Amino acid sequence: MAQIPSEPAAPEAWVQKRSFEVRDFRTQSGALLPLVRVGYETYGKLSAARDNAILVCHYFSGSSHCAGRYGPEDAAPGYWDAIIGPGKAIDTTRFFVLSVDTLCNVNARDPMVITTGPASIDPRTGRPYGSAFPIVTIADFVRLQKALVDALDIERLHCVAGPSMGAMQALEWGALYPERVDRLLPVFGAGLQAQAYFIALIDLWAEPILADPSWRGGDYFGASEPLEGLHRSLQAITVTARSPAWARSLFGRDWADAGADPLANAGHRYRVESTLAQIIAERGRFAEAAHVVQLVRGCRIFDVDADGGSIAAIRAPTLLISGRSDTVMFPEYSAQAALRLQAQGTAARHLSLDADGGHLDCLYEIGRMAGPIGDFLQ
Amino acid sequence: MAQIPSEPAAPEAWVQKRSFEVRDFRTQSGALLPLVRVGYETYGKLSAARDNAILVCHYFSGSSHCAGRYGPEDAAPGYWDAIIGPGKAIDTTRFFVLSVDTLCNVNARDPMVITTGPASIDPRTGRPYGSAFPIVTIADFVRLQKALVDALDIERLHCVAGPSMGAMQALEWGALYPERVDRLLPVFGAGLQAQAYFIALIDLWAEPILADPSWRGGDYFGASEPLEGLHRSLQAITVTARSPAWARSLFGRDWADAGADPLANAGHRYRVESTLAQIIAERGRFAEAAHVVQLVRGCRIFDVDADGGSIAAIRAPTLLISGRSDTVMFPEYSAQAALRLQAQGTAARHLSLDADGGHLDCLYEIGRMAGPIGDFLQ
Repeated sequence: MAQIPSEPAAPEAWVQKRSFEVRDFRTQSGALLPLVRVGYETYGKLSAARDNAILVCHYFSGSSHCAGRYGPEDAAPGYWDAIIGPGKAIDTTRFFVLSVDTLCNVNARDPMVITTGPASIDPRTGRPYGSAFPIVTIADFVRLQKALVDALDIERLHCVAGPSMGAMQALEWGALYPERVDRLLPVFGAGLQAQAYFIALIDLWAEPILADPSWRGGDYFGASEPLEGLHRSLQAITVTARSPAWARSLFGRDWADAGADPLANAGHRYRVESTLAQIIAERGRFAEAAHVVQLVRGCRIFDVDADGGSIAAIRAPTLLISGRSDTVMFPEYSAQAALRLQAQGTAARHLSLDADGGHLDCLYEIGRMAGPIGDFLQ
Repeated sequence: MAQIPSEPAAPEAWVQKRSFEVRDFRTQSGALLPLVRVGYETYGKLSAARDNAILVCHYFSGSSHCAGRYGPEDAAPGYWDAIIGPGKAIDTTRFFVLSVDTLCNVNARDPMVITTGPASIDPRTGRPYGSAFPIVTIADFVRLQKALVDALDIERLHCVAGPSMGAMQALEWGALYPERVDRLLPVFGAGLQAQAYFIALIDLWAEPILADPSWRGGDYFGASEPLEGLHRSLQAITVTARSPAWARSLFGRDWADAGADPLANAGHRYRVESTLAQIIAERGRFAEAAHVVQLVRGCRIFDVDADGGSIAAIRAPTLLISGRSDTVMFPEYSAQAALRLQAQGTAARHLSLDADGGHLDCLYEIGRMAGPIGDFLQ
C-alpha cells in the first residue's frame, strides 16, 4: 500500500519537511482511507547498512519537528533539540533520526505540518471529511510510521522514542513490531494503556469544542468555526500540562493591568490569565478543532493489548522516564508499566525527571536526562 | 447590622438547619447588599461560659452540613462526620460545633441550603440579582460568619477549621480576627493567597458555564438555563478533584455498555465516563451555575494580605494538613504557608495525609487525621 518516498537528501544545515503518502490505508477501526499523506523530517545520515535509525514520535500538540531549524529566520529549534543533534544524547553524527507527523495533527494549519484528518479533502467527495473521518488510534499512527520505515528500507530501528503521546506510540511499536525495534524510550507516557483517570482528564480537553454551537457534530467546514471552543480547549490543555511552580515563577499574583484590580470587576484579569490568553491565541492560529477532538478520541482508546499487538510481545529493552510534577501523565503510569514489563522478563527501567514544571517538562527539561538517554542508546 | 438569631435549641439526635440574616451587608468589593440570609448548623452544646465553640467552614461545593443526619431517612451524614461527633476528634460532647452556608453556595437549589447569591431575589427589584450581584470573597464569607458568632455571643472560637475553600476561610479568620480565634486548622487549602496556578486551574471550572450561550452574562433567570455548561463545569470540578488511583480502583478500563466498544463509535463510552455523567447529573440537580461562577471569582481573589487582614496578624497556633495526591490544592501551597507563618514566629505545623484519592481525600479520608486533629484541639 505504500508509495516509495523520495530518498532523503544528504544532511544539510537546515531541516526540511518531506511528505509521505499511503493509499488505501485501513484504520484499526476498520475504515478505509483512500489516501493519507503525512509529513516527516530526518536528521543525520542513514548508514549504508541502514542500521542506525531512531524514530522519534511526537506529543499531542506537537509535530515531526523535533530538532534543528528550518532556516536562518527560524526563532526556535524543534522540541527535543536539547537531546537531538551532533554530539548530543541522540547524536546525529552517529544516528539517523526520523520523525513523522501523526494523522489528525493538531496544527493542521501550520504550513510546516502535513497531515490527514477531518480537515483534509475526502477524494471521494471533494469536500473536507468532517465527521466522516474515522476514529484513528495510536496504533494507526504507528502502522503509518511502519509503512514509511519499510519504504526507507530500514529493517530494524535502533530505538523508538517520544514524549507524552509519543511515548504511547513507542510502546505500541514494541507491541506491534517487536522484531523491528531494538530499544524503547517512552518519556512521560500513559503506560501500556489509557487508564480510567487519563480518559476522564483528556475528555476535559475535547469538551469545550464539543460544547461550541459552531461544532455542529464536526461538520463545521465551510461555515463558522468553533474557535471559542478551540481556544478553551487549548486553555485546558495548557493549564493541565503545567504546574504551580511554573506559574509562580512567571506570574506571581500580579494583575494583568495596573489599576485593574480583579476584585473591582470580573473582567479584570491576573497576569497568568492574560498571558495564557496570549499563548492560546498564538497556538490557536494553526490548530484545527476537529483534529483536537480526534486525537483525544484516539488517546483514550490507547491499549497496546487490544489493537493487534500485545504487552507480552514487548521484548525490547525499555527506558521509561516520568516527570515528578506531571499531573497529566502521572508518574505511576510509567512505574506500573515498568513493573508489568519486568514481570514478564523485559528489561525495563524507570527513571524520574525531578523538575517542577509539570507535564511539559517532557519537552523543556529533557536535557536533564541527556546522560541516561545517551547511555541507553549505546 | 446583625439580626439576633434564634438561640440554638438543645442538642437533638437529628441535625437542624437554621437561618441567619444580616441587613445592609457591605462586601469587600464595596457593594451594599440590603439583606443576606444564610443557613447554619450546630452540633453539641454551647457551654455556659460560651468558650467551647469550633467553627467549621465548608468546601467549594459543600454546605454547612458537616456532621450528623437530618433524620432517619437521611442516607449519608455530613461531610466530616468521621471526625465530628460524640467521642470523635472534634468531640461534640465537649465542643459546640458551628458551620455556616457561604454566600453564593453552589447548591442553592438544595432545600437544605440557605444562601444569598445571584439566584436570590434582589429586594430592590423583586427579581433575581443575576449579574447585578457583586463579587464576593472569602473574606466576605468570614465577615458574615463573624456576625453570627457575635450574635451567638461567642467571644473566642476554640478553633476555626475547614477543608479546601474552608481552609482558606480558616486562615482568613486568623488574619481578620486574630483576637477571636485560638487555633486554625486549614485542611487541603490554597495557602495564604490564591497562587497563579490555582487561579488558572479554577478558571477551568467556570469556563464551561461562561461558554454556554444560555449564560447571557449571568442574566439567564427566567429564561433557559446554562445547564450544559453547568454539567461540564461540574465535570471539570469532579475530575480535577480526583486521582488516577481513585479511577483505577472503581472503573479500570471497562466499557460502559457490553458490546459498545469506544473504538467503534465516538458516542460509546468507558464506564468512568458514564459514571461521571451520572454523578454530575445528580449533583447538577441542586447546583446553580451563576453561583459556581461567583465562587470561582471569589476564590481566585483570595489573599489574606489584601482584604483588611494581614498574614502578620496570624498568631493562632495553626495545623495545616495537605494531601499527598491533591492536584487542586497542591501540598506545596500548605508547605509554603507553614514556612511563612513559622518565619514570623507563629506556631505552625504541616502534616501530609498520605492517601491516593486526590483532592477529595480532604473529605473521604479525613478520618486518618483524627489523631493529630484531636491532639491539636486539646
